[in-house]
Amino acid sequence: MSTSNPAPPLALPPASPHWAVIFTSQRTQVDEPGYAQAAGEMMRLAQLQPGFLGAESARGSDGLGITVSYWRSEEAIRAWKGVADHLAVQRMGRERWYSAYTLRVARVERSYTLETSPRTGLEEGR
Amino acid sequence: MSTSNPAPPLALPPASPHWAVIFTSQRTQVDEPGYAQAAGEMMRLAQLQPGFLGAESARGSDGLGITVSYWRSEEAIRAWKGVADHLAVQRMGRERWYSAYTLRVARVERSYTLETSPRTGLEEGR
Repeated sequence: MSTSNPAPPLALPPASPHWAVIFTSQRTQVDEPGYAQAAGEMMRLAQLQPGFLGAESARGSDGLGITVSYWRSEEAIRAWKGVADHLAVQRMGRERWYSAYTLRVARVERSYTLETSPRTGLEEGR
Repeated sequence: MSTSNPAPPLALPPASPHWAVIFTSQRTQVDEPGYAQAAGEMMRLAQLQPGFLGAESARGSDGLGITVSYWRSEEAIRAWKGVADHLAVQRMGRERWYSAYTLRVARVERSYTLETSPRTGLEEGR
């Protein structure tokens, strides 16, 4: 994602169970304007979807990026996939924008924040 | 995480079910050397843990970072938590290094890569 990402920097964790879509990718160095525009448009569309809870995104100077979007249910993810599949931008970007990517759909079982956790963020995999 | 992160940039997705620990954080601007050293040490220790499958990490220029570590089982995550809880570095970093963070433990239900997915990474929340 680019800096035009309109999502809040740290999505609030809802109390109830929710789902995460983890998208990790290695950017090629081509077509930054086209990529940024498409990524921003995708995020705007996602925010209009029922069940969208928020998203967080980071990309380092090495081109490795992680975007995690949060959803109320697996059904909401499927509905979003149905919308996204029809976007022509998808058929353009795959080979040009990424040299590699992995997408994971995961069910969030529990969460903690700086305020609620009795310990630091370095625990549990950090 | 810093550039000294020894983990591969894109962790390979195992075929079998696995778990993800999603750590999103907003860095303060203090103590970069101390933070980088602690983060690297935590990653080295995680890699020694049974059930550790890999990790991916990115932090943008705005200080927002996402680290996702992958584990064979929830039990492996708990064991790692037990190790991490005893590290004194945890008690040092919390207030100094992060202005906010959220940690989520999630069960990965399915995954795709650039090679295996019939569509682009923009689908499903991207």
